[in-house]
Parts: sequence; C-alpha cells; structure tokens
Amino acid sequence: MREDATAGLPASPVSPSFDAGAAADPGAYTLTLSCADRPGIVHAVSGALAGAGGNITESQQYGSPDSGTFFMRVDFTAPGTYDGVRSRIAPVAGQFGMDWELHRAGVPVRTLIMASKDGHCLNDLLFQQRAGNLPIEIPAIVSNHRDLAGLAEFYGVPFHHIPVAADTKQEAENQLRALMAELDIELVVLARYMQILSNELCQELSGRAINIHHSFLPSFKGARPYHQAHARGVKLIGATAHYVTSDLDEGPIIEQEVIRVDHSRTAQRLAALGAGVEGRTLSKAVQWHAEHRVLLDGRRTIVFN
Amino acid sequence: MREDATAGLPASPVSPSFDAGAAADPGAYTLTLSCADRPGIVHAVSGALAGAGGNITESQQYGSPDSGTFFMRVDFTAPGTYDGVRSRIAPVAGQFGMDWELHRAGVPVRTLIMASKDGHCLNDLLFQQRAGNLPIEIPAIVSNHRDLAGLAEFYGVPFHHIPVAADTKQEAENQLRALMAELDIELVVLARYMQILSNELCQELSGRAINIHHSFLPSFKGARPYHQAHARGVKLIGATAHYVTSDLDEGPIIEQEVIRVDHSRTAQRLAALGAGVEGRTLSKAVQWHAEHRVLLDGRRTIVFN
Amino acid sequence: MREDATAGLPASPVSPSFDAGAAADPGAYTLTLSCADRPGIVHAVSGALAGAGGNITESQQYGSPDSGTFFMRVDFTAPGTYDGVRSRIAPVAGQFGMDWELHRAGVPVRTLIMASKDGHCLNDLLFQQRAGNLPIEIPAIVSNHRDLAGLAEFYGVPFHHIPVAADTKQEAENQLRALMAELDIELVVLARYMQILSNELCQELSGRAINIHHSFLPSFKGARPYHQAHARGVKLIGATAHYVTSDLDEGPIIEQEVIRVDHSRTAQRLAALGAGVEGRTLSKAVQWHAEHRVLLDGRRTIVFN
Amino acid sequence: MREDATAGLPASPVSPSFDAGAAADPGAYTLTLSCADRPGIVHAVSGALAGAGGNITESQQYGSPDSGTFFMRVDFTAPGTYDGVRSRIAPVAGQFGMDWELHRAGVPVRTLIMASKDGHCLNDLLFQQRAGNLPIEIPAIVSNHRDLAGLAEFYGVPFHHIPVAADTKQEAENQLRALMAELDIELVVLARYMQILSNELCQELSGRAINIHHSFLPSFKGARPYHQAHARGVKLIGATAHYVTSDLDEGPIIEQEVIRVDHSRTAQRLAALGAGVEGRTLSKAVQWHAEHRVLLDGRRTIVFN
Repeated sequence: MREDATAGLPASPVSPSFDAGAAADPGAYTLTLSCADRPGIVHAVSGALAGAGGNITESQQYGSPDSGTFFMRVDFTAPGTYDGVRSRIAPVAGQFGMDWELHRAGVPVRTLIMASKDGHCLNDLLFQQRAGNLPIEIPAIVSNHRDLAGLAEFYGVPFHHIPVAADTKQEAENQLRALMAELDIELVVLARYMQILSNELCQELSGRAINIHHSFLPSFKGARPYHQAHARGVKLIGATAHYVTSDLDEGPIIEQEVIRVDHSRTAQRLAALGAGVEGRTLSKAVQWHAEHRVLLDGRRTIVFN
Repeated sequence: MREDATAGLPASPVSPSFDAGAAADPGAYTLTLSCADRPGIVHAVSGALAGAGGNITESQQYGSPDSGTFFMRVDFTAPGTYDGVRSRIAPVAGQFGMDWELHRAGVPVRTLIMASKDGHCLNDLLFQQRAGNLPIEIPAIVSNHRDLAGLAEFYGVPFHHIPVAADTKQEAENQLRALMAELDIELVVLARYMQILSNELCQELSGRAINIHHSFLPSFKGARPYHQAHARGVKLIGATAHYVTSDLDEGPIIEQEVIRVDHSRTAQRLAALGAGVEGRTLSKAVQWHAEHRVLLDGRRTIVFN
Repeated sequence: MREDATAGLPASPVSPSFDAGAAADPGAYTLTLSCADRPGIVHAVSGALAGAGGNITESQQYGSPDSGTFFMRVDFTAPGTYDGVRSRIAPVAGQFGMDWELHRAGVPVRTLIMASKDGHCLNDLLFQQRAGNLPIEIPAIVSNHRDLAGLAEFYGVPFHHIPVAADTKQEAENQLRALMAELDIELVVLARYMQILSNELCQELSGRAINIHHSFLPSFKGARPYHQAHARGVKLIGATAHYVTSDLDEGPIIEQEVIRVDHSRTAQRLAALGAGVEGRTLSKAVQWHAEHRVLLDGRRTIVFN
Repeated sequence: MREDATAGLPASPVSPSFDAGAAADPGAYTLTLSCADRPGIVHAVSGALAGAGGNITESQQYGSPDSGTFFMRVDFTAPGTYDGVRSRIAPVAGQFGMDWELHRAGVPVRTLIMASKDGHCLNDLLFQQRAGNLPIEIPAIVSNHRDLAGLAEFYGVPFHHIPVAADTKQEAENQLRALMAELDIELVVLARYMQILSNELCQELSGRAINIHHSFLPSFKGARPYHQAHARGVKLIGATAHYVTSDLDEGPIIEQEVIRVDHSRTAQRLAALGAGVEGRTLSKAVQWHAEHRVLLDGRRTIVFN
C-alpha cells in the first residue's frame, strides 16, 4: 500500500534518489579538514592523495585570519578500499594535528527531522529528498503533535509522536536519544519544531543539529518574529538556518535569505510569505551540511559551495 | 481513508483554506475594469460604489501611455446582494465602455492543473493551496502520464489520465474541454505540462491559462533551456510564468524570478536549482491571477500587487 | 570656471535635470493625504478634483488596519492656478480632518546634504541628481570635516564646513538652523554624517531628515556594524534608510537592501561591499521622499512606489 | 591645481588606493593556470610552491567536465625574487602543458577606459578605483565625444578625444593602438562606448577587453534593449558584463545582475533604473578580472570569487 501511495511521486529528474540501500559511487570521496595554519598543508595532503593513486576533482581552501585556522575540502577519486585510503591520510593528519573526516561520496547522511504542527519546512525537505536534491536518508520524523503524521506516511517515513510537557521534557529527550542511537542518526533537523531543547541535548548535538529561525537573525530573536517585523515596518523579511547551541538563536549561521515586503502586508501575511523562505533556506543548509560543505570556525561557519 | 491520509497535512497557519464549499465573506468584493482613458473615471466609479453604500478598502489605478487604456482594481465592502451591487456599477461601465468584472471576495477560482511527469510545480501548488495561500480550488488534475497520480490522491484531488499521441491530440483536447465544462473550470494551470496545446485551444483559453517556462524569457525559448543556459555560461537562471497564447513562449508575462549560479553547475544541476524557482514563480502568478490582480494591456500585463 | 569643471558631466539621458530654476510642468500636481478611515473619502477627493477640471493619472490608496488611518496619493493634471486647485480640495480636507499636501509636479525639493569623510553616499546622490534621477536641488553641503570640499566644488554645490566638538555642538546646530532658514531647506539628508544630532534638532526635523544606517536594522545598531556582522558570521549584509528621530537608529524605515557575502570577507571588505548598498539605498529613499511617495503611519512608513 | 580639484575626494576607508607608484606587497603572488585535466596537478603545483618556500593563503580549483580542462588559482607568499619564484613554477607548467600567469599581488592592472556620452559607468569605475575597491590604475580615458572630459579631469585622468566617423574608423583604431602601446595598457574597459570595434581589434584584445551590455543577455541583443524589454513586458531587467569578441554581444559572460520592475515603468524609466545596474555589474567584472579571478573555458568563464 505504501507502494501505491508513493508511486505517483515524481522520480527524480535530476539524479538517483539517495535511498538507504543505494550503492555508493565506489572510489569517490570527500575529505574535509581543519588545523592551525602553516606552510605545506596543501602539499602534504595532495601528496597523501597522490600516494593513494587519487585524482582531485574539486578542492577549496580557506585560511581564517580571525582564528588562524586553515580549512580544506577535497573531492577526489581513488582506487582501493576506504580503509586503505584512510590509512594514507592519517599520518599527514597526525603530523598537522588535523580535525578531519573522510566520507564516501553518495552515502546519504542519516537524518532525523523534528517538527510540530507547521508542515511547510517538512514538506520541502521530504519533496527535495525524494527529488534527489538532498543527499540524505530520513529514517524517522519526530513530532510533539500528531498533525503531520499523514504527510510522513505519504512519504513512507516512520512517524514518532513524542509529546512534550513541562514535567516530561527529560523523558521525551531520552526517547529521542534512544531513537537516534537505534537508527544511527547523524543529523537532526528542526523543521519548525516549537520546543526548546535542553542545554545537555544541545551540547550532545553540537555541529549535528540544524534549526530554522523564522527571521533574519540577529533581528527579531525569540517568539513571534513576524509580528516584530511588522511592528518595526521592515522592508525585507528573512529566515536563518543555523546550528543548534545551548545559546538560543545564537548558533553558527549556515544560510540566510530574504524577500521584499511592503507596508500592506499584515503580520499574518508576512508569516505566509516567510514560510516559503524558511523552507528553502533550511533545505539549502541541509544540502550543504550533507554534502560536507560546512565547517565550523568558532561561532562562524565556512561554507564551501 | 482519504480522511486519514490527508489528516496529517498542516492546517493553514495563516488563513482558512479556500475549500470548495467555504462560505465567502458576505459583502466583500473585488472590481476590476479597463477602458479608454479620460477624465472622470475614478469619480464615476467611486460614486457608483458610494451609491451602493460601499467602502473602498484598497484601490489601484494605472493609465498606460502605450495603449491609452486606463486600468483599475478596487476592493470594497457593500451591503445588499451581489446583483444589487452589480446593478449600481453597470451604468457607469456602460457609459465609459468598460471591460469589467465583479468578484465576490473569498470565492476560490476553480482551477484545473495539467502536468506530465515532473511534480515540483504541482507539489508546490497543492501545498500552497492547502496552506491557504492560493485562493483557488482544484477539482481536477490532468496528466498525459500516470506518474503523479499518487500525489494527486494524497491531496484528495481527482486525477485524470489523458494520454496524448500525435493522432489522438484532438481527441485528448476534446476530453479536456468536456472536463472543463463539466467542472465549471475558470483557470487552467500548466505545471510543467510537456505537450503543446493546439492553436484553437490556446485561443479558447485566452487569458485563462497560465504556463511556466523554465527560463528567463525571452532567453532560451524552446526546448532544453537549462542546457542552453549552461552552454552560454550565464550567471543567473530563471523562470517565467505567462499566459498561454498560440504563439509559443510569447504570451504576456505575469511573473519572473532568477537565482545566481556559477561555472561549476552542470546543465543537470541548473535544472535541479531551477525547479525551485519554477515552482514559486508559478505559484505567485496563480495567486495574483486568482486574486484578480492581473489585467491585460495588449501583450503586456498590469499586475496590481 | 565652474562651467568648465562641470561641463563634462553627463547630460541626463532620461529626463531634464531638476535645476533650481527649471520651469515646473504647469498644471501637474501630486496630492498626498491621510485621515481616519471611513466610507466616501475616495469619492469626495475625486469629486473635488473633477470639480477642478482635473484628470487623475495615477492614484494609490491604503487603509492601515493597525492605526485605522487611510492614506492616499494622487497624481493629476488640472487647469487654473495652484491656489485655485488648492481651494477646491480644502473643503473636503476639512470635512474629513485630513493631513494633506499639494505639490506642483516637477518642483524639486530643496535638499541640504550632510556628510563627514566618507564620500560614497554623497557621490551617489550628486551623480543621481545631476543625471536627473532625483527630483531635488541641492543648495548646500554641510560637513564637520573638509575632505569632501573638492567633490562638492566639482558639482558646483556650496560647501559649508561646520566643525563639531563636544562644547560647540549647540553652536554648530544653530549654524545649521540658520543655513536651513536662509536657503529655504525642505529636506536634510545625512549621507554618512558621523555626528549625532541633538534631541531638539531631531524633533524639529521630524519627517524631513533621512539617515542611512550601514546595517540591516534592527540588527547591529550602533557603531561598527560591519565588525558586528563579521563577528556574527551573517550571510547577508545590508543598509537601511530611515527618518531621523531622537531615538537613534529607531526612526521609521523607508528602504532596506541587502547583498550576499561569505565567510571569506573580512570586516573591512564587508564595509567596502556595503558602501555600494548604502549609496543606492539612500538614493532610493531620497527619490521616493522627493516624489512624495512616503507617508508616515506612526513609526512605520507607507511607500507608494 | 589637480591637487585642489581632487583633494576633496574621499581617501579610501578600506584599503590603500592602487596608485601607479604604490609599492606592491613584496613576496605576495597570485598564480592562475589551466591545462588538460589529469591526476597530480595540485600536488605538482603545491610542491613547486613549497620548493620556493611558499605558503598558500587561498586556493581554488575546478575541473570542467565540458572541456576536460583543469583550472586553478592560488594566492601565496614566498621569499626571494619574482624571477626566482617563476623559475620554480616553470618546469611544472611545462610538464603539464599549462597556460599560466604569475602576478605580483597589489600591482594594479593598467586600464584604459572608453566611453561616449553617458557617464554613469565611467563615474562608478573612477569612484570605485579612487576608493580602493578596484586594483587598477587608469592612465587614459578615450572617448569619441567631449562630454566626459570634465569628469576625467576631476579625477586627474588624461582624456583623449578620438572622434570616429565611417571613413575614419581605421585611423581612430590605430590611434587607440598607439596609445595602448605607449601607455603599456593591459585591460580595455568599454564603459558604454557606443562604437563597434573592428573584428581585427576585437581579436587583438581577446581576453583583455570588457564590455557592458545594457540587457540581461542573451535577451534583447543589439540596440535599444530597454525599449525591447518594455515592449515585451518583462518583470526584471538587467545588465551583462562580458569579454569583447568579434561576435557582437556573444563574448564570454563575466557577470550579470537584474532588478525588479513593473508595468508602470516606461522605456525611459527602465533605462534610468538600469544605469545603476550597469555601473555595478561592470565594476564587479573589472574587479574580478583585475584580481585575476576570471579564466576562460571556451566561450564560458570560470570566476573564482
């Protein structure tokens, strides 16, 4: 029956969907790294890749004058096994004291989406994923309400209703932790999830949880940003996708977008107009994270896109 | 069972959904008109509305120096019946030789959507309609393929598969005409419908059919516009929503939008990026048409938004 | 010698420059008004204009649901004298308790520009005015520094150096008041003028002084906004043109614009990128004000453009 | 007297102006290269730079799947002389058959600007150069009219009036060639120069001459694009900066930008609105060229920015 319900969804016009079981492109990798900046890093890395028989297809570097940190992202192909390639890079990484990750290209990031009642961000993520534009797989949707169960069902994603009340918050977060462990979740996306996570959970999820805030941060932090924007009479409204930190609405910004509005828009109409911006801002941030294009430089992000 | 499947879709956070049977706001109207420009039009119209006990809530006028035509759109409230209000305006309309329409506010425009295999525009229209952002109702989806039947079913919209081959085109168009008559269709939206309508049908639908073209017209007319854009190395790509005419890709433009791209995007990637632009450009054009904000000035549009 | 220095500047390709002595278009007017919203306003106004033999060429209305105020802007032509036209409107204005202004079309707004050391906003205003894009005349430039005297001289605008120190601020503002009175100044533009005006002066200039703030307000109020934006890692930076009030950076917003930036931009580079945005945001706000398109609705603006 | 006339211009708030005699940053370089793509290029280049004691500060690579060409741009610092650094790179360049250039950082590109009567693009270039935003020096302005002589004089740039008539075109181009040779010109910018260059001159200037076209190419090629845009009723207008080729308006695109317009804009008003877009699109293209960020991939450009 799932088959029937989803059969009518568009096959991707663009690229194969990143389904859970899809075979990854053998031999294609993405390497990301950061370390204290000093001469010789690029040469050492490209040497290690050459030693592995690798061919660089795309590469970007950036040295941050603020933090003195060097950032690099390399797409390359190489023969042999993942472990074999990894063992070529490890000595160089050790020599320069790098934080580094080696990803097989095309392996989707296992992503859990949290939402409450508003479905526009969830709908956009599910549709984009299905169309092959987001290299993620979605083993679970979690919500503190039941409203979006039908949307989840249509896309064939298991829906978990975890209600949250003042005295059940810790219990709810423990359920979430258990679910993440069981499903081997790598990324959490808060798609208009209207509950505040505890400091402990924020810290556990550091760099692995993305939130969408419905304003152009740092303007209009907190609740009802469209009402704030209307009251202030701004001529542009926007949305901000950022990593979750325990300091609410202050996490590193990944992407922002705005649209033009005018005096005739009520706060309600601003919210409706803003919903589209929220959806595509969040989807872009998720895409870049899942393509391993986002690196952290303190409270700022490097986005190699 | 439809109930269950759609129950999880978001109730509109913004406004009541324009469901078929929804009661229109009694006493609120939109008047649109055009006529040869000369002194006294506004005074005559506002006089007729005042005579009907009306109160103007929003009004826009424009005199086209190109065509010498005057255009006006008025939102107003008035007591009494629709026919009563209409009878107040008719004499003024006659005196100035106006083309005019009087719409009850909040009555959704009966809209038939046509699509082929790509679902991104259809998905956007269905979601926006459900969220209450588009004042339309959708009694039918027509496609020359079966791929999107599941999406239609999820939103509870009857899906009509009308295949088209070279020798069945006229028969297919007759089926469409019959369906439109039966369902009292006011607007046809071509949401990436990949068949060319006959000249006869284009003329019958004049001013009542909107198409989305996946380029920034008049650039890259015709087929495979993203390949053309890639070959030319443009730095922005876009989409154009326009009224259908028998002169392909030359109909009056309602809305256009662009996004920035760079050299690293393949034609396939341009197509994926462009899909989002297409969806929101088409949805905006449909919204403005359905809000009676678009008037025709020859091959150009006046958009009061 | 002025002749020589300015002879090389482009004549306007667009429209006659609004030089001080230029003859206004006889018989063309712009009427702006606001009053408590109630039925019959448009009919009464259009009736008064019809009584004056007037022909409406463009008109916009807006009823603010927040304040219950009705706003209207009408372009029209009429025979007879300015006083004659005015006397036709006055009774209607009295009847509805309107705030209203009647402007002869094409009469430039007498504008005094204040700047400090940065010339990009001043340069943009002077060039746009000369090119005929801004319906203003500029009888004076005032600065607390001498750096921009040569730019003023090139454009043939008298330059007044009024230095400001802590103990001379009141004296400096009195000089400015005297200059404004002498030159019959209608609008003051703060084009990156780096001194804070006194509360008294802000109140005197209410609705007649426009400032450019080099951020997307309300973000990054106060000093060094580009450093703040860099530290926060925002992905868009902007500028805000607003009316001056005694509440610094909180005046009604007229126009805002943003541009996209990325992690590689230093605070200095952000400032350089932002300079272009500031110039065109300020020029747009000045244009709309000088075309009588901006009306005040409390701390918000209605912009009929 | 030059001193007086220019004294009032703003000193750069951002960076030192790239004046002709300014000392270049010793030891900082930009390397650009392209060659057939194959494994080992990055490693070989970074090895050569390491051998010269160099430290990479920024680097970008791109392999074009269309042409099979690899492109690279590297900012680095190194001790020793320019020739010493060059001799380290030459063997690698030879081995891979590279097209390559090594530029000392901070050495401005010697640029000749051509214009006719419209000054908005010239004004923007001169102001941006003076403000330190464009790493160019401008030893000459050439025009077929005298209108812009005063603007050139104000900025202290020698103005050459070279009139062009049907029978003097070849003679005029020879004058231009002689001037370019005498002044050691590296880049020619056509800032709304309204004469068509001969095929021979276009070929001589291949990759070294930038033109601004006042439309969003490939739409509205040829004359009076704003009239074409108005007639077609487009909702966005734009400008395109591209390298000059003998195929008019078909050269590789460097940058494009658009702004939103509506039905109420006349062709004349579109032209006025477009002027601002033209100026900043051209200035951006000149900046990127002068920062050695633009590489040619057939008729497309790679822009590393």
